[in-house]
Amino acid sequence: MKLLEEKILNEGKVYDGDVLKVDGFLNHRVDVEFLNLCGKEFYGIFAGDGVNKVLTVEASGIGIACLTAQYFHCPVVFAKKSKSANQSADVWQSCAHSYTHGTDNTITVAKEYLGKEDKVLMIDDFLASGNAFNALADICRQAGATILGAGAVIEKTYQGGYEALTKQGIRVESLARIASMSKEDGIKFC
Amino acid sequence: MKLLEEKILNEGKVYDGDVLKVDGFLNHRVDVEFLNLCGKEFYGIFAGDGVNKVLTVEASGIGIACLTAQYFHCPVVFAKKSKSANQSADVWQSCAHSYTHGTDNTITVAKEYLGKEDKVLMIDDFLASGNAFNALADICRQAGATILGAGAVIEKTYQGGYEALTKQGIRVESLARIASMSKEDGIKFC
Repeated sequence: MKLLEEKILNEGKVYDGDVLKVDGFLNHRVDVEFLNLCGKEFYGIFAGDGVNKVLTVEASGIGIACLTAQYFHCPVVFAKKSKSANQSADVWQSCAHSYTHGTDNTITVAKEYLGKEDKVLMIDDFLASGNAFNALADICRQAGATILGAGAVIEKTYQGGYEALTKQGIRVESLARIASMSKEDGIKFC
Repeated sequence: MKLLEEKILNEGKVYDGDVLKVDGFLNHRVDVEFLNLCGKEFYGIFAGDGVNKVLTVEASGIGIACLTAQYFHCPVVFAKKSKSANQSADVWQSCAHSYTHGTDNTITVAKEYLGKEDKVLMIDDFLASGNAFNALADICRQAGATILGAGAVIEKTYQGGYEALTKQGIRVESLARIASMSKEDGIKFC
């Protein structure tokens, strides 16, 4: 998505530790009108597949997930992060490692909100190593839901997330695919 | 908002500890089409006031904030919750007590995303004691931003939040105002 690549080049900042800061439009300040265009783009990609639920993880995924779901006329379910790994009869749960924060999070979805009847589009702000999407996919399988695909606004293609998901048979679509980035050489797209 | 009251009566569940569970449409599963109507309602109330930023707190506020901001054609900023209370030169921060979780959260907003030029509508899913809105208002004052109002989807009118905010001169508008609730007698609106 050309407009998104331009926005990343104009507004994104590369930090040590392979961190791309795009919190001016994606995950702190949310450029709602721009993310609406991203949502429409996801709709263009997955329309016709029968998506009836958009699944994401709190907190950064919620904005783009809600804006995207509007086009599909379907609800969003956002998985909750919890420090405790207590097993509960009422939730599907899985473990996601956070690349940014270096922590393991148990994520949970109430069983009543995800089931066999659901055709799920997973949406998140970033795809890097794929840990968040992996955990969401795990939860979908527990629920017996159909996984139609994973949509990320920005993908770091060199961190293995695409491979980790596609080898499970999951369709992966990212709106901007970063091939490399560094403070010195800037951001290169695929 | 009559439709919202009906939805709360139909789908909400009252639990011990004065907890109203509406996570079937508001804060776990997000009924995007319905919350769009709520966003439009907020627009009807605050249109013409010059809102140029919608401010909320992660995570439950983000969905309704993004859907509302679409009508104002402005961005959302969501305050981040952090366990640490480390003072940073780069953020505005305040302390919010969570009624639901019984914890104190430091919430932060990057200084670059909130300033004197901002005319802020604060949006959240619930208004109870007003702690989250209080912290957001505190952050707005630190930033020199103008507070145009506080909009909550659901207000529990008997917990003092309305009074705590209006005595600071903040306009408070809630789409559904609960006068009382209990497992025995159900939910009564004002």
